[in-house]
Amino acid sequence: MNYRTEHDTMGEVQVPADKFWGAQTERSRNNFKIGPEASMPHEIIEAFAILKKAAAFTNAELGVLSEQKRDMIASVCDEILAGKLYDQFPLVIWQTGSGTQSNMNVNEVISNKAHVNNGGTLGEKSEIHPNDDVNKSQSSNDTYPTAMHIAAYKKVVEHTLPAVEKLRNTLQEKAEAFKNIVKIGRTHLMDATPLTLGQEFSGYVAQIDYAMKAIANTLDHLQEIALGGTAVGTGLNTPKGYDVLVAKYISEFTGLPFETAPNKFEALAAHDAIVESHGALKQLAVALYKIAQDIRFLASGPRSGIGEILIPENEPGSSIMPGKVNPTQNEALTMVCAQVLGNDTTISFAGTQGNYELNVFKPVIAYNFLQSAQLLGDACISFNDHCAIGIEANEPRIKELVDKSLMLVTALNTHIGYENAAKIAKSAHKNGTTLKEEAVNLGLLTSEEFDEWVKPEDMVGGLA
Amino acid sequence: MNYRTEHDTMGEVQVPADKFWGAQTERSRNNFKIGPEASMPHEIIEAFAILKKAAAFTNAELGVLSEQKRDMIASVCDEILAGKLYDQFPLVIWQTGSGTQSNMNVNEVISNKAHVNNGGTLGEKSEIHPNDDVNKSQSSNDTYPTAMHIAAYKKVVEHTLPAVEKLRNTLQEKAEAFKNIVKIGRTHLMDATPLTLGQEFSGYVAQIDYAMKAIANTLDHLQEIALGGTAVGTGLNTPKGYDVLVAKYISEFTGLPFETAPNKFEALAAHDAIVESHGALKQLAVALYKIAQDIRFLASGPRSGIGEILIPENEPGSSIMPGKVNPTQNEALTMVCAQVLGNDTTISFAGTQGNYELNVFKPVIAYNFLQSAQLLGDACISFNDHCAIGIEANEPRIKELVDKSLMLVTALNTHIGYENAAKIAKSAHKNGTTLKEEAVNLGLLTSEEFDEWVKPEDMVGGLA
Amino acid sequence: MNYRTEHDTMGEVQVPADKFWGAQTERSRNNFKIGPEASMPHEIIEAFAILKKAAAFTNAELGVLSEQKRDMIASVCDEILAGKLYDQFPLVIWQTGSGTQSNMNVNEVISNKAHVNNGGTLGEKSEIHPNDDVNKSQSSNDTYPTAMHIAAYKKVVEHTLPAVEKLRNTLQEKAEAFKNIVKIGRTHLMDATPLTLGQEFSGYVAQIDYAMKAIANTLDHLQEIALGGTAVGTGLNTPKGYDVLVAKYISEFTGLPFETAPNKFEALAAHDAIVESHGALKQLAVALYKIAQDIRFLASGPRSGIGEILIPENEPGSSIMPGKVNPTQNEALTMVCAQVLGNDTTISFAGTQGNYELNVFKPVIAYNFLQSAQLLGDACISFNDHCAIGIEANEPRIKELVDKSLMLVTALNTHIGYENAAKIAKSAHKNGTTLKEEAVNLGLLTSEEFDEWVKPEDMVGGLA
Amino acid sequence: MNYRTEHDTMGEVQVPADKFWGAQTERSRNNFKIGPEASMPHEIIEAFAILKKAAAFTNAELGVLSEQKRDMIASVCDEILAGKLYDQFPLVIWQTGSGTQSNMNVNEVISNKAHVNNGGTLGEKSEIHPNDDVNKSQSSNDTYPTAMHIAAYKKVVEHTLPAVEKLRNTLQEKAEAFKNIVKIGRTHLMDATPLTLGQEFSGYVAQIDYAMKAIANTLDHLQEIALGGTAVGTGLNTPKGYDVLVAKYISEFTGLPFETAPNKFEALAAHDAIVESHGALKQLAVALYKIAQDIRFLASGPRSGIGEILIPENEPGSSIMPGKVNPTQNEALTMVCAQVLGNDTTISFAGTQGNYELNVFKPVIAYNFLQSAQLLGDACISFNDHCAIGIEANEPRIKELVDKSLMLVTALNTHIGYENAAKIAKSAHKNGTTLKEEAVNLGLLTSEEFDEWVKPEDMVGGLA
Repeated sequence: MNYRTEHDTMGEVQVPADKFWGAQTERSRNNFKIGPEASMPHEIIEAFAILKKAAAFTNAELGVLSEQKRDMIASVCDEILAGKLYDQFPLVIWQTGSGTQSNMNVNEVISNKAHVNNGGTLGEKSEIHPNDDVNKSQSSNDTYPTAMHIAAYKKVVEHTLPAVEKLRNTLQEKAEAFKNIVKIGRTHLMDATPLTLGQEFSGYVAQIDYAMKAIANTLDHLQEIALGGTAVGTGLNTPKGYDVLVAKYISEFTGLPFETAPNKFEALAAHDAIVESHGALKQLAVALYKIAQDIRFLASGPRSGIGEILIPENEPGSSIMPGKVNPTQNEALTMVCAQVLGNDTTISFAGTQGNYELNVFKPVIAYNFLQSAQLLGDACISFNDHCAIGIEANEPRIKELVDKSLMLVTALNTHIGYENAAKIAKSAHKNGTTLKEEAVNLGLLTSEEFDEWVKPEDMVGGLA
Repeated sequence: MNYRTEHDTMGEVQVPADKFWGAQTERSRNNFKIGPEASMPHEIIEAFAILKKAAAFTNAELGVLSEQKRDMIASVCDEILAGKLYDQFPLVIWQTGSGTQSNMNVNEVISNKAHVNNGGTLGEKSEIHPNDDVNKSQSSNDTYPTAMHIAAYKKVVEHTLPAVEKLRNTLQEKAEAFKNIVKIGRTHLMDATPLTLGQEFSGYVAQIDYAMKAIANTLDHLQEIALGGTAVGTGLNTPKGYDVLVAKYISEFTGLPFETAPNKFEALAAHDAIVESHGALKQLAVALYKIAQDIRFLASGPRSGIGEILIPENEPGSSIMPGKVNPTQNEALTMVCAQVLGNDTTISFAGTQGNYELNVFKPVIAYNFLQSAQLLGDACISFNDHCAIGIEANEPRIKELVDKSLMLVTALNTHIGYENAAKIAKSAHKNGTTLKEEAVNLGLLTSEEFDEWVKPEDMVGGLA
Repeated sequence: MNYRTEHDTMGEVQVPADKFWGAQTERSRNNFKIGPEASMPHEIIEAFAILKKAAAFTNAELGVLSEQKRDMIASVCDEILAGKLYDQFPLVIWQTGSGTQSNMNVNEVISNKAHVNNGGTLGEKSEIHPNDDVNKSQSSNDTYPTAMHIAAYKKVVEHTLPAVEKLRNTLQEKAEAFKNIVKIGRTHLMDATPLTLGQEFSGYVAQIDYAMKAIANTLDHLQEIALGGTAVGTGLNTPKGYDVLVAKYISEFTGLPFETAPNKFEALAAHDAIVESHGALKQLAVALYKIAQDIRFLASGPRSGIGEILIPENEPGSSIMPGKVNPTQNEALTMVCAQVLGNDTTISFAGTQGNYELNVFKPVIAYNFLQSAQLLGDACISFNDHCAIGIEANEPRIKELVDKSLMLVTALNTHIGYENAAKIAKSAHKNGTTLKEEAVNLGLLTSEEFDEWVKPEDMVGGLA
Repeated sequence: MNYRTEHDTMGEVQVPADKFWGAQTERSRNNFKIGPEASMPHEIIEAFAILKKAAAFTNAELGVLSEQKRDMIASVCDEILAGKLYDQFPLVIWQTGSGTQSNMNVNEVISNKAHVNNGGTLGEKSEIHPNDDVNKSQSSNDTYPTAMHIAAYKKVVEHTLPAVEKLRNTLQEKAEAFKNIVKIGRTHLMDATPLTLGQEFSGYVAQIDYAMKAIANTLDHLQEIALGGTAVGTGLNTPKGYDVLVAKYISEFTGLPFETAPNKFEALAAHDAIVESHGALKQLAVALYKIAQDIRFLASGPRSGIGEILIPENEPGSSIMPGKVNPTQNEALTMVCAQVLGNDTTISFAGTQGNYELNVFKPVIAYNFLQSAQLLGDACISFNDHCAIGIEANEPRIKELVDKSLMLVTALNTHIGYENAAKIAKSAHKNGTTLKEEAVNLGLLTSEEFDEWVKPEDMVGGLA
């Protein structure tokens, strides 16, 4: 491998000759061999490209950067956003907790690539200085959290929420399609009074609707960006008006409503906005877990389980048991939910650990947030496309189970009182008989009264 | 101890002769000896009293309960709310997961006390049947979650939020009082560029403001109540219009905006509203942790720590080290925050574990939520009254530290570039000298330029 | 209320006239109104009584305390251990993080009660000084962690482990009793190849055995005590040989193998022993959750669930559905497990937050540990006595389900290959027929071969 | 892209023409587009190669597989282990919860590659059937958990523990090197009595020793493997003696003490061994967090922090503050610890969620465990090499701080009593004077007595 010599304020470093990064990136590569290479999420790198471009435009507009430099910087940012420099960002999550080294990685790549774009040779001093030009009016301490918010917001609104909504709509269609199918209810896992399968699914839709609303509630905070705070939140070395203008450019470049954070000290020292949004993602995970769990139990069997619904058969289920089909999409989705619950522990822990003017758990917070948002979105689409849309009611089985239930006796409470109704249910359970047989035998009501009062379809109520 | 005989649908039970509870409560007492007695939160019992009264009024208004029975029930509810029957609720959290036994405890106490109020003798059959009258148009499955929401909502808006706001206002006053005190910033725990102590405190205020807003965002969901869903969410055995009317009565009795949940299936089978609100309490804990942690580090010393602020001396700090004073309020508050983080794990876990028509982790969810909301509120008041209001700036120490900082060199970036500025800082660090000495020695600027460009008070910016 | 005046190094304090505590306890009562009063676990107070007595004996033996003072101190410690001074310890968990105030509470009560025992009047200066005598050769920083270990170790070996073993033995008896009952297996919730009900229960026994072993593995660390380290671990102000001797006395007084920690710096600044032991309690919770969950699913129904086992009917299950019986013990146990998982989050978090020579999250760590150990033990006994011992196999239902299973086809893999076996299973599933019918129809084997090769009782193997 | 047609029991599938995988792998690729491709940890794939080879040898030795087939299978396993087939395992973590599809991926690749190795053409029917030969005497349900244990055990003993020990030894060297450097202690962050810097570091060594012991305690459980249980734990379709023999081969191939699990039902349905081992990794994370946190606080400054130790300067610390150096290794390590805490939540949650004969959260459990074990090991090495080995005591600063401390007064307790000592400390604090001045002024002791009694070097005790 060929190397060239780069330097920074600590001295010289040998850098792979064909890479655009510089001394500080290379130092970080060597000093942090923790986990797989290049694990810093690419969404963060792309968010950096957006904000570096916005900073260049702002600096130029405010007269502290030439238009030529602005365009040279912006041009490389566009290359990054086009995915052309994907292999220039080798750093890992587990580096400095401010993400300084990834900020410098971006600064160095922009500096060197701009020089090459300008006809220069890699290794020469670039016209664009990584600190004085690319990083102008910035600090890692305000750029990295800005990149976190840009990446997180984009991921949630462009990926997670649309995916969740897709699943929500499918479940809503099922709720509608199943609205007249009366089935036995189950509470404590035990037979209870009936409801419709559509009502059961309407509960899932409601859970998802609440989760989406909860996520939406957090976006106001997430759209606030730290840029303009520089090193400690005071905005040292930024021109007047910079913070508002740079947010406007970021908003323009992304088409999303980013705005400058009203308090930059909070924006650097805490990541409560991420804690807040991930809390809502966690709520979504809680909801999806319940839904996926119910669906696999309702589909269990085919002969020795509940079997009230049928889910698509997507792949052979067992390497040893021929013909077996399993609720694999539910399993993938519930595993994702388990991951999100753990990610929430990490993010909350990391959120508490800011000290003074800076929280230095930024990369691990970003990584966990983006993983959760990505996986939840992906898993919702996968679950939707390969499971939810194919759910069918197993009506004969549903009817079989509702017909023999003892909990239909509840309909008699208002006619003969709770204690008499209990006597009927207990006798039927003990004797293996039907409610009607026992009701008549115990002399508590007539056969005709039973037929009139105990109608499962009348027990599913006017609610929802 | 004297006993009387009570019965339920399973047979006879001996109950302490002087207690109003009945057979089912006694069964639960004997079957669940788990943890300390009577651990079911009293807020839940009080919420039950509210909802039982509301149900009686609703049933009467809708013509399914006599006005006489309504008044007998309501009267006992008022006694409970007045704290007169405190020792009649012996059950524990760790019972049936629907809270059925606490619902029955309330039903039994109301039934028997109403009978005694009416001149009857304990042990006789009451005019008010615990199931057919007190529990009319209800099920444990919709009353317990309703009690959870009533108790949680009340605790948050009547205790937690006012307490948090009190602390927030004190910190805001400190931010104002300290707004001109320039101090050294710290990032990565290391000396950084200056800010004012007021700016530092403004970040704390911002964190709390965001947390309060996040909590407020969850209240819409929390104010929805399950009552009217009865056993599985269908509203079986409720009269028409019951759910909306009973919510109106609860709202009237509490003065809080409770309303009927639009989807009762969700309201019984999931507790995402509690997951959501506790997620916001967790965010508050994250914020308070950072604040309390910072304040104790800033106050550390008195001679070998940071010592930039002084906090009240409330008690001798050590049983062995004479004269020691410790940041004990910060310690109490951060321990509370640690508890809330764990409670969030429990609530999220429990939230995932609903099956079919019912989540049977209701009591543990209620217990953890109420503990968090109570402790956070109490700890905020305690921290406010015994620490925050007494915080003073240690101005001589603050000045000493800012004056010798090397990071003031950052002000030179825009004049001589990042690399030259770095040279100055490194030389001063290495030689134990001042920035000015090295700046001049290195020939990078004159003494006059240094004095003009490097003014801490000019470095704290126009932000916030 | 009457008060008397007490003083400490900060001045005078009014104390309730009839209480033995002194100035520092009263300060803490007033300064920490967080959560319910007197929440500091009584196990901690009792552990303090043990260690104060041990310290007095050690100090006397090493010549730094008179025998008279030793006996006066020891006598009050015995009163505490006899439960006679229960209302003298009003402090809360949420106080100083070193537990200093509870240490002083014990010191003050011993000092004052000794004086009264000696014929003195409360409010006079005691012959026994709370710091100089009761706390001699001690600091809160080494006594509180010692109390934590004493209380935790005792709770685990005297309560949790015996309770768990009781349940384990019941499950082992069930495994034996059910060893010949062949039932359908379920993987992914779907029908799988058969096993015996006894084999299924043997898995539960194995889980508990592993958990008990894991807990036992942690006791070596937990039995090490900090006493002798005093303020920062150096043992300042202790006589030579003190640490070893005081541990010997504690071991003697408790009958448990406590010994002095080889490194006192670790013992004050970290609580990894508690983190370690609670990690094992958490593993137990994980195991118990799976077991309790399985048992309630196996018992679900009675008519529309799995229904393979019958569990005791302990109480009416529903306030609205007559005759309903629910797996309430399983619900209590799984709620306890959910609590323990959250407690582990709190303890682990708190464990990370030691700084320098002291971890100041001691009370919250102690509280969570003791709660987990108590609840797990209580819940195991409750689950054992009211559920596990009454579990019965529902043999007709078990036979019904195994007979119609399609997964018996797996027995044919070694005879006709996986793909042919799959064809049979799929045809039977599609046509609603039996495996045998399809096997013969497809011409893959004869009826006789089927009967010879597919015997559920031959499929449960020689393992376990 | 070119495709060939493969089939499984569900029909035909188009597979990339140049890949060795077959129909089931391709189905999974298409059905589970969740997160990045090929995320199933390569350690799991390698563990599969080991166990497939062991199964082939065992099957051959027990007479159910020809030696020719054995060798064909083993040969491909060796290719996998040599890293030659790295791009043949495209599946993700978020698939079926039993890992069936990754088991089939391995089966298919071995089948097809063996055929090609034998001179065949990809797409033809292989002599080696993926189910009947490669998967002989196996099920996903016993192979995947076996792969989990192999991968986890190897990672812990070959990577994590050696890395931790390396760091432990460095810290032990520092403890030795610093054993005579007397410094001020800090409790509650406040100045306390002195200890040596070596003593402080000895506490870190003790923490790591306990953590390593805790990890070692879990290995007995982790070395037990499920193989031989097949589908539900009964060992259906395995030859007699298979389970013991296959464990022997795995032990031989790995050089590690794997043995067959005594209860296969537990081994499939629960993952308590992983819960247990990860609990110990979490303890390690707790310990490392405290250590890394202390070290960065001790090194904080350089001018406005504690500054008692110096850590290596590895890279420029700030993109805006010239000359800044940060404790970046500490930050990376503490972020790793935060991740491990979250991973523990995920693993514990997943551990509770087994149902009946199978836990279907296997891949997410494996992923989180391996991530923790890898990151902890990597971060220990990185922290060791780039931070710990370069730690130096800043002796002038240490002396400055100890000399002015007020807590040296504690040495006077045994001479003049706690209350008099407190008076001296409080006066000195109030007046900004020295202890000696106040001691003499207050007439409590002479200057000579002070000099004799208050010697920091005499206060660091004989302990540790």
